[in-house]
Amino acid sequence: MLGSGFIGRFYADSLQGQRSRDRIISIYSRRETSAKKFASDYGCSHWTMDMEESIAHADVDVVCIALPNNLHEAAVLLCCKHKKAVITTKPLGRNAVEAKRMLEAVERAGIFNGYLEDLVYTPKFLKALESVKNGALGRILWSKSRETHPGPHSDWFWDLEQAGGGCILDLGCHCVEIARNFIGKDIRPLEVMCWADTQVKPIEAEDHAIGLVKYENGAIGQFEVSWTFRGGLDLRDEVMGTEGTIWINNFLRTGFEMFTTGKSADYVSEKSESNSGWLFPVGDELNDLGYNHMFTDMFNAIEKGISPKETFYDGYVVNAVLDAAYKSAKTKLWEPVQLDIWRGQTGVSKHNRLVDYDEEHYLVKEETTHYGAKKVIMKHKKTGVISEKTL
Amino acid sequence: MLGSGFIGRFYADSLQGQRSRDRIISIYSRRETSAKKFASDYGCSHWTMDMEESIAHADVDVVCIALPNNLHEAAVLLCCKHKKAVITTKPLGRNAVEAKRMLEAVERAGIFNGYLEDLVYTPKFLKALESVKNGALGRILWSKSRETHPGPHSDWFWDLEQAGGGCILDLGCHCVEIARNFIGKDIRPLEVMCWADTQVKPIEAEDHAIGLVKYENGAIGQFEVSWTFRGGLDLRDEVMGTEGTIWINNFLRTGFEMFTTGKSADYVSEKSESNSGWLFPVGDELNDLGYNHMFTDMFNAIEKGISPKETFYDGYVVNAVLDAAYKSAKTKLWEPVQLDIWRGQTGVSKHNRLVDYDEEHYLVKEETTHYGAKKVIMKHKKTGVISEKTL
Amino acid sequence: MLGSGFIGRFYADSLQGQRSRDRIISIYSRRETSAKKFASDYGCSHWTMDMEESIAHADVDVVCIALPNNLHEAAVLLCCKHKKAVITTKPLGRNAVEAKRMLEAVERAGIFNGYLEDLVYTPKFLKALESVKNGALGRILWSKSRETHPGPHSDWFWDLEQAGGGCILDLGCHCVEIARNFIGKDIRPLEVMCWADTQVKPIEAEDHAIGLVKYENGAIGQFEVSWTFRGGLDLRDEVMGTEGTIWINNFLRTGFEMFTTGKSADYVSEKSESNSGWLFPVGDELNDLGYNHMFTDMFNAIEKGISPKETFYDGYVVNAVLDAAYKSAKTKLWEPVQLDIWRGQTGVSKHNRLVDYDEEHYLVKEETTHYGAKKVIMKHKKTGVISEKTL
Amino acid sequence: MLGSGFIGRFYADSLQGQRSRDRIISIYSRRETSAKKFASDYGCSHWTMDMEESIAHADVDVVCIALPNNLHEAAVLLCCKHKKAVITTKPLGRNAVEAKRMLEAVERAGIFNGYLEDLVYTPKFLKALESVKNGALGRILWSKSRETHPGPHSDWFWDLEQAGGGCILDLGCHCVEIARNFIGKDIRPLEVMCWADTQVKPIEAEDHAIGLVKYENGAIGQFEVSWTFRGGLDLRDEVMGTEGTIWINNFLRTGFEMFTTGKSADYVSEKSESNSGWLFPVGDELNDLGYNHMFTDMFNAIEKGISPKETFYDGYVVNAVLDAAYKSAKTKLWEPVQLDIWRGQTGVSKHNRLVDYDEEHYLVKEETTHYGAKKVIMKHKKTGVISEKTL
Repeated sequence: MLGSGFIGRFYADSLQGQRSRDRIISIYSRRETSAKKFASDYGCSHWTMDMEESIAHADVDVVCIALPNNLHEAAVLLCCKHKKAVITTKPLGRNAVEAKRMLEAVERAGIFNGYLEDLVYTPKFLKALESVKNGALGRILWSKSRETHPGPHSDWFWDLEQAGGGCILDLGCHCVEIARNFIGKDIRPLEVMCWADTQVKPIEAEDHAIGLVKYENGAIGQFEVSWTFRGGLDLRDEVMGTEGTIWINNFLRTGFEMFTTGKSADYVSEKSESNSGWLFPVGDELNDLGYNHMFTDMFNAIEKGISPKETFYDGYVVNAVLDAAYKSAKTKLWEPVQLDIWRGQTGVSKHNRLVDYDEEHYLVKEETTHYGAKKVIMKHKKTGVISEKTL
Repeated sequence: MLGSGFIGRFYADSLQGQRSRDRIISIYSRRETSAKKFASDYGCSHWTMDMEESIAHADVDVVCIALPNNLHEAAVLLCCKHKKAVITTKPLGRNAVEAKRMLEAVERAGIFNGYLEDLVYTPKFLKALESVKNGALGRILWSKSRETHPGPHSDWFWDLEQAGGGCILDLGCHCVEIARNFIGKDIRPLEVMCWADTQVKPIEAEDHAIGLVKYENGAIGQFEVSWTFRGGLDLRDEVMGTEGTIWINNFLRTGFEMFTTGKSADYVSEKSESNSGWLFPVGDELNDLGYNHMFTDMFNAIEKGISPKETFYDGYVVNAVLDAAYKSAKTKLWEPVQLDIWRGQTGVSKHNRLVDYDEEHYLVKEETTHYGAKKVIMKHKKTGVISEKTL
Repeated sequence: MLGSGFIGRFYADSLQGQRSRDRIISIYSRRETSAKKFASDYGCSHWTMDMEESIAHADVDVVCIALPNNLHEAAVLLCCKHKKAVITTKPLGRNAVEAKRMLEAVERAGIFNGYLEDLVYTPKFLKALESVKNGALGRILWSKSRETHPGPHSDWFWDLEQAGGGCILDLGCHCVEIARNFIGKDIRPLEVMCWADTQVKPIEAEDHAIGLVKYENGAIGQFEVSWTFRGGLDLRDEVMGTEGTIWINNFLRTGFEMFTTGKSADYVSEKSESNSGWLFPVGDELNDLGYNHMFTDMFNAIEKGISPKETFYDGYVVNAVLDAAYKSAKTKLWEPVQLDIWRGQTGVSKHNRLVDYDEEHYLVKEETTHYGAKKVIMKHKKTGVISEKTL
Repeated sequence: MLGSGFIGRFYADSLQGQRSRDRIISIYSRRETSAKKFASDYGCSHWTMDMEESIAHADVDVVCIALPNNLHEAAVLLCCKHKKAVITTKPLGRNAVEAKRMLEAVERAGIFNGYLEDLVYTPKFLKALESVKNGALGRILWSKSRETHPGPHSDWFWDLEQAGGGCILDLGCHCVEIARNFIGKDIRPLEVMCWADTQVKPIEAEDHAIGLVKYENGAIGQFEVSWTFRGGLDLRDEVMGTEGTIWINNFLRTGFEMFTTGKSADYVSEKSESNSGWLFPVGDELNDLGYNHMFTDMFNAIEKGISPKETFYDGYVVNAVLDAAYKSAKTKLWEPVQLDIWRGQTGVSKHNRLVDYDEEHYLVKEETTHYGAKKVIMKHKKTGVISEKTL
């Protein structure tokens, strides 16, 4: 395990809790006290402040990177050197250039590579994706993902050099991959329009952003990300298709509600802002945020010698989309997604919108009105005239 | 009452239900059967297929326009001619040019003018606005309004010439005015970025659109509108401020849930799509959609000789914002909002983001972590270095 | 208006807000300052500390009783004396003996009598009742109503002599009438089992109670009432029928959610307990709690010379059910409901439970299992043997 | 694994999915096809129609009983004979006499015994229980658990001889143990009042019941169970304490909502009733229903040589409470819980309700009214007079 901070501890809780076979052998941290504390808390036999020592450790089969964004590439290159399987927290790189170098390095080295995008592994997301794949929503038109909270836990997130960006990079990476999954990971993202601003925090990076990603089949992915939200961790996905819709609330409204006057003040859940009044805990954060299913997928894939659901390639595509978002926020233009490597479909066209009502008309809409009538609205195939009739 | 269609009947239900003093004297409809049925249903003493006859009717004090968008201007001009108070359904015009002509006409004629934007009159909205005005959310950063459903009820909506546009004009007008109210009606909307597409319906106008409206104080208004949503009428507002957030669901999740096997099949509520399974009726559509409070405001204003909360001027501003949205959807650029007439503040600047932590640092964030520690993240005023410390 | 306290003010807000025709002429209060303040706030031309003077006032057409329970009877008898229409807050009496005397008095006097049970007039309840009457839920099996909060506003509620009881009388009266409406007001309540205790408050009356009311057709009404609930005003109804279910949340979860850090501290809504954190305001309390629809029904009934939906007779039946509840809480037995006057159906029997599956079997259940099979469970008509088969 | 039906398969999915170390060696079923199919689906090396053969199998360390209720005792006795650790589905016995015999047998044999009450292992329940133990709700006053659905999956449930009862035994066992956990498993349940009826199904057992369980400290446990509910699987817990409340929805409202027109028709979740309209799937049934955490607790306890959270003793207490419920449903009296073996506290008294306001008064209530005033209601210590004052 490289990194002993907030996310490293979350990963460790899941890694050692879920499958009782897996153990953390070695912990690398930049701070000695932190490394020692982690080693003691999670029973690691080895700790070090030398990253390569940890990666090269003979008992280590898999390296898990839980470091600030600016250290990912160096860590990945060391894994390539020592031929160790590597799994990396999100985002893969600070930008697509870094991500592409990492992708090419691991593929050249022939090592297992997994991209730890936990939010496409939440139980609700997996079930929703299954329904989408089964066609329950018809053709997907739009997929929105929203992740907002009052700001990240560690100082390096707020530093543009180390983090590589603000909430777009930190949170938007989740949203983009969620949309890609619903719309189809083989559908090419074409261009991005993004608004970003620093509305509240005294930082250089953006603390609020909204973006639209246009896909080749006409579907739209949307992200809403912020470090200025008050009220906890807002983590919602919505998908619209021609035959239905799905709404997922991963964190703040999950069927668990508590009111307390606050005479007791224990920890509620990640990024909640209060210990009294109405609180909305989650039952099992590791499971509900997807960590368990993610690591199970990773280790099962390693054991079977196959690719996990999320690989460095996915991390690379996400970085490319976010690069376009950052560029758009500056140029105020729709910016093309620069994808030197594209492994999905090409030349996908938009879907035909014409549904026959009868020989002469296309169907626009059927409905029952509130005063009881059944109505059909239709368009004449030749004249284009719209008319309605009551059946 | 001009117009006997879907919205005309809704208005009539509210008008004659709410304040027992008000009566509909005359109904104008383009279709005789429709005029007669309306007159009989609502007890109107007079019906006609001649619009001017209805407006000029001696007993008519207030003219309520519930006609297709392309007929608003002609009706308004007749009201000016006969010096009758006029209240008009939304949007005011098909574009800002029409809207501006109507605004100037009623002001020249000196007649009462009300803009029937019901969704800023819903009880939830009014209460939310009061909280926002009282500062419960701090400085407003973002206001999103979403209105999506499976498409409008009457044929003319689907015809570009009569309607003047698709779901942006039909639904976006609500969303824009909701955001204006939350952000401040005196804050100038500067520019608009809009994506729009015709994803499903065999029509020329857009059936799905998403837009961002930038205001002079740095706040962002967002609209999500569609005629392709499946699942009923989705009517949600969200507002984020520096001190809090508000989520309103006006229609689909209001604390009223019904499961039925569907052996009975009566009407549930506007634009619901089913009569069995889990249904989400609203208690009182006229009240929950704002019609009652809207007409009360209008008639009280007329009696007191003051302006209602929503006037033709507001309708004009909304049209100007939507014009920029339509232009942006074509040019793919952020388009400036063209406002020849602006009666709000000018030269508003963005808010200062710097909060002192101590003499040398600005505060970035305070929090309690999930392992119990209290942390402060701060930025050095001179060096700009971000650091954290545990208290 | 008799009474200028919490409920009197709520009534006044609704009375003078809803139908602009109705005015409060005279206010009677036991305290001079309170009477004067009320008169000034609501523009009453007359105030007095002599109840009869208010009732007898020449301009008063309708007397609205908003007094402590122990004063209802005296007020009603004065209305009978002066032949004034009378509407009374809930409960009608402190017990069925008082209620019966009031009922007989108003009927003898031939005056209009209305029972102000607002919770069967909420928009959600009215819509739900309509669905139940239309058969959407099939045969009604059970109706639960829950009203709990942290305790009433005025001192007299907590005094057993003035109030006549604790939360059973204060809140249970709502619940019983809600169940009667869903099950059928013409179905006789037979017997009651009730648990009651004083768990928290230093009072003689009960502060928590749960009761079951058995109806002649086999349906069950359930009430859950408490003055010890923490978290606001919990006001939920549930109904189960053979074909469906309805869940109503009248107050705490109505599609309106607000988070605020609490730097602003304005009033949220009746009986909420906090001004910061997640709050759940209602849009329009007067409407959502049924006051508007209740007074409209009352005044319309007076003008038309008919009975309102809720009369003194209903108040009497509710008191009789609650008397049985109080008795049961002491004797720990199911206690019969003593109804000297019964105007509904008699001799109703329980419904036949047997549905044919085929000639030889009754149907127990049909279902689709999670591994895809379709199963029928049935019972042999003669042998009674239960068997299943996969179709 | 004894039993290859619905619950056996659920158990197997969790057992072999969660901890990758555990394997099902042998499957016993009463039907050959069912045994073979199970063995093939779950990779069991051994199948048999002879129960003892399965239990005695050399590689079997732990026997998991997933059989109809009337077969539990025989299976348990065989485990005692062969000294195999045993874990049994709920309820433990058909009544307390059976349960007591099983409890005494396993304790005499000195074998590990676990009671598979999954609903006190759901992630939400575990988190809620932790909050309750930490005092977030203060002193617990009431705990309600509701489990209703349209009826069980297998024929034997509907047969009184095999099942031993109807929905009280099938579902009430969950509810009773949930309440015991919240109120304190060492607090003695004293007496039970229960209403039960067969309202819909053509069976001898009850299909709907409501019960109250009085505990020695004055707290109340409540269960609402039914096989007649329409709308899916309704699984809700509520707890009230002096300082707060918790509401848990385990199944129907968990932040996952889907609307589909139903052109696709795949399985949604256990006991849902429809494949179109608004559906409410759960993300991960095995986890959300507690199976994963339950088996982890069981296997960890076996490995550590300690008792699991839920043992046969708990199963015995639950059966004793349900026996009192069945008796009460017949006698219509509060029936004492017959507990020959009691291992918790004795002589617990009710809590003192008196909180000082000042030297002369007890505090009844403090509040802020909707017109802004702050009020205290108090009771004089000597005279008992209730009074209020505005601060």
